[in-house]
Amino acid sequence: MARTIDLNADMGESFGPWVMGQDAEILKVVTSANVACGFHAGDADVMAATMHEAVKQGVGIGAHPGFADLQGFGRRRIALSQAELGNLVTYQLGAAMAVAARAGGRVRHLKLHGALANMAAEDEAMARACYEAALAVEPELVLMVIAQTAQQRAAEALGAQMACEIFADRAYEDDATLVDRKKPGAMIHDPQEAAARVLGMVEAQAIFAASGATLPARIDTICLHGDGPEALAIARAVRTKLEGAGWALAPL
Amino acid sequence: MARTIDLNADMGESFGPWVMGQDAEILKVVTSANVACGFHAGDADVMAATMHEAVKQGVGIGAHPGFADLQGFGRRRIALSQAELGNLVTYQLGAAMAVAARAGGRVRHLKLHGALANMAAEDEAMARACYEAALAVEPELVLMVIAQTAQQRAAEALGAQMACEIFADRAYEDDATLVDRKKPGAMIHDPQEAAARVLGMVEAQAIFAASGATLPARIDTICLHGDGPEALAIARAVRTKLEGAGWALAPL
Amino acid sequence: MARTIDLNADMGESFGPWVMGQDAEILKVVTSANVACGFHAGDADVMAATMHEAVKQGVGIGAHPGFADLQGFGRRRIALSQAELGNLVTYQLGAAMAVAARAGGRVRHLKLHGALANMAAEDEAMARACYEAALAVEPELVLMVIAQTAQQRAAEALGAQMACEIFADRAYEDDATLVDRKKPGAMIHDPQEAAARVLGMVEAQAIFAASGATLPARIDTICLHGDGPEALAIARAVRTKLEGAGWALAPL
Amino acid sequence: MARTIDLNADMGESFGPWVMGQDAEILKVVTSANVACGFHAGDADVMAATMHEAVKQGVGIGAHPGFADLQGFGRRRIALSQAELGNLVTYQLGAAMAVAARAGGRVRHLKLHGALANMAAEDEAMARACYEAALAVEPELVLMVIAQTAQQRAAEALGAQMACEIFADRAYEDDATLVDRKKPGAMIHDPQEAAARVLGMVEAQAIFAASGATLPARIDTICLHGDGPEALAIARAVRTKLEGAGWALAPL
Repeated sequence: MARTIDLNADMGESFGPWVMGQDAEILKVVTSANVACGFHAGDADVMAATMHEAVKQGVGIGAHPGFADLQGFGRRRIALSQAELGNLVTYQLGAAMAVAARAGGRVRHLKLHGALANMAAEDEAMARACYEAALAVEPELVLMVIAQTAQQRAAEALGAQMACEIFADRAYEDDATLVDRKKPGAMIHDPQEAAARVLGMVEAQAIFAASGATLPARIDTICLHGDGPEALAIARAVRTKLEGAGWALAPL
Repeated sequence: MARTIDLNADMGESFGPWVMGQDAEILKVVTSANVACGFHAGDADVMAATMHEAVKQGVGIGAHPGFADLQGFGRRRIALSQAELGNLVTYQLGAAMAVAARAGGRVRHLKLHGALANMAAEDEAMARACYEAALAVEPELVLMVIAQTAQQRAAEALGAQMACEIFADRAYEDDATLVDRKKPGAMIHDPQEAAARVLGMVEAQAIFAASGATLPARIDTICLHGDGPEALAIARAVRTKLEGAGWALAPL
Repeated sequence: MARTIDLNADMGESFGPWVMGQDAEILKVVTSANVACGFHAGDADVMAATMHEAVKQGVGIGAHPGFADLQGFGRRRIALSQAELGNLVTYQLGAAMAVAARAGGRVRHLKLHGALANMAAEDEAMARACYEAALAVEPELVLMVIAQTAQQRAAEALGAQMACEIFADRAYEDDATLVDRKKPGAMIHDPQEAAARVLGMVEAQAIFAASGATLPARIDTICLHGDGPEALAIARAVRTKLEGAGWALAPL
Repeated sequence: MARTIDLNADMGESFGPWVMGQDAEILKVVTSANVACGFHAGDADVMAATMHEAVKQGVGIGAHPGFADLQGFGRRRIALSQAELGNLVTYQLGAAMAVAARAGGRVRHLKLHGALANMAAEDEAMARACYEAALAVEPELVLMVIAQTAQQRAAEALGAQMACEIFADRAYEDDATLVDRKKPGAMIHDPQEAAARVLGMVEAQAIFAASGATLPARIDTICLHGDGPEALAIARAVRTKLEGAGWALAPL
């Protein structure tokens, strides 16, 4: 039986007349799409078009909620209470579920975006507030979590379905956090290097740190990017490499 | 067997720190709450609090989508394509469904708000675009329509569940449209007069026009207001009058 | 003495992380920049960067206010009262003036955007409400008006400084309105054709209609576009053609 | 010659159909109005109406910029770069200046709002980024700073015109910061107590801490509130007390 792995990318990040990303191209590579829900990016029309296309391509749909900060693209940290976090996620998840249903699909997973994701990766209580709210709406939801962070711990504590994610183009520290983008080597630019590294990590079910250390980790999905020619090349190389090694790509 | 009728009011129209309406009081009078969905009023926190309270009081929950125009409270007409209208309604309905589910309830009906409602009352194709989108998400939804308008015609053409609405405090023209607010007598201010008139219309299943004409109409629900002491007095008088005449009040 | 003409283009229409237009390129061609003011496009950071660059290039700065409709890019008609229109324009003009001042420049002209411009081109009272508000703030402002429309009539009635605008890439009807984009020939795609036509109109101080009719018109500025390779090629061709014919290009 | 003092209050915090505060009442008591600029509260129409009324009452107008967070009323901390802070303040100040000019007044002072103010009270570089931007637009501006905080230090370092502010209804710690609202005694509820305390502090040019300590401080203006009957009563009592003691109330 084939071993399966998921490839995911953020999508639907255009807004009104402004285009972002290369969704049509990246949809041919990934198996799961994290669709922005209108707060940090996306709007109802963009969501509908994106999900319609994902359904057509057989790509799994995920809700990708973020902070209500369009100008800052959800990348600015905003301190909210746990109740507010729960409502923020519930609202966006519900909007995504309805748009997906009307597009003939369904929301299969939830992934937090931007600063909301970063904060939840550090703060288990915050991650739990977001995830509990989502599961109260849709208990079958798969929580896509950044592997080895507070996101994963929160999902495990809730006994939820979970997909643990690593990044194809980012270097890791020894504590499984990402190397700061300002440091040299933080980003992996070479498609073949990225692909070989991803395959190695998936086979080992471990994160390979920049130091050479091997950090055992459950790995269910690979985060790819779709902006720029380099990102698309990496995405394609990762897919080709995994398929060549006998991994079946499948949505969550 | 008791004859039943529904009383509805707009609710959850506060936003952030700004309070609007007397939701706690009006929730004791009505049987259905039309909850703003965050575009023209309301936010995720207000929606959650409002729906939680509605569930507690046994009041039916409706989604009340409007144009994305917070400053104008959704009262300014905005021309959207039918596709955009469908996405606008889908998004807000979905958000409301998720918030309701998490509050232990469910969205039972859909009522269009403000300029969106007014435009759809005049334009059957526009009403249909909104209603089709909503029914694609939730086929069991009850469409709350303004009686004898293009809203009702669109709902009938779709074969949807429907609740026809009249207004407790507004005078009617001979074509069943509302008397312009600028004309004398457009608003009914006296609670007893409003209550007697509502009872008469409900019993006759007809709209009583200002001219004295009787316009046969299906009437399933009465629209009440909750802002200001007069509106609340009218709401209470209508309820008392209907109950006194043997009508059972029940959500849709 | 050289005859002078102005070339203008809309600019600063990016928002947050979303890029629109090729401002750096178009700034080398035009003499006046219409800078979006944060309601339909642009934000405080984009405005500052755009105006800073305009100052550096010696390009005149204009405020380009629009409706508060980011998703619709200010292209949806919204009915506002004259008082609201005045406040809308005042607010955005003031913001632009401050950002320009801090960038070492000043707002020299005002041009209405999108649906606001279209409505004001048809409705003199509406144009007047916008222009009066702007002049109350800055009496020296040059009103950039679409030639031969209600915008021009409103500016003339106010005795204001005025720059009358024609479009380089649009065909005209016999009443000096633009040919509907859906009709064949509405857009002029060939740079040389556009340039020759613009020069002809500027020299004749008349609009050349698609029918062959010549409509006398004051022409002070040419509206160019900066999105897409074709628009940029037209912009450059128009500039070259005018300079070749002895016209000096100068800001308002 | 009479000694003069200023009384200030936040104003213009309504938004669209939502009313906040009792501006008409508080305008009769204060000499300076801090007018919200449309990002955390207020809109162009509310600003215009508020400033028009301030001009009529002879009350000085101040711009009161805040974070772009309407739902959170500008009370949530958002980390912005110094460049972004400068643009945020510039934009809002400019909008306020134009609206004031059209109302027949002018913006005399600048006061930061909410979380922006709190962060700038702790972080001199942040305060400086805001103030430098404002002064670049209007060098004559009076910076209204919270006495004895980083705001005051930043204004002093810039050599700017400055008005140092204390709060009429808040208790102080020994380091001149406010006692946390959650602690007993943090708020002063009795109008006579508040008035006597304010007079004492103004006369002593010192903050009276809850501990009994006297902290020398320059005091030019008293911050009053206008929401709720208690706040209005305190505002009136403070004014009466100061006038009774021979202080002349005057705008900045």
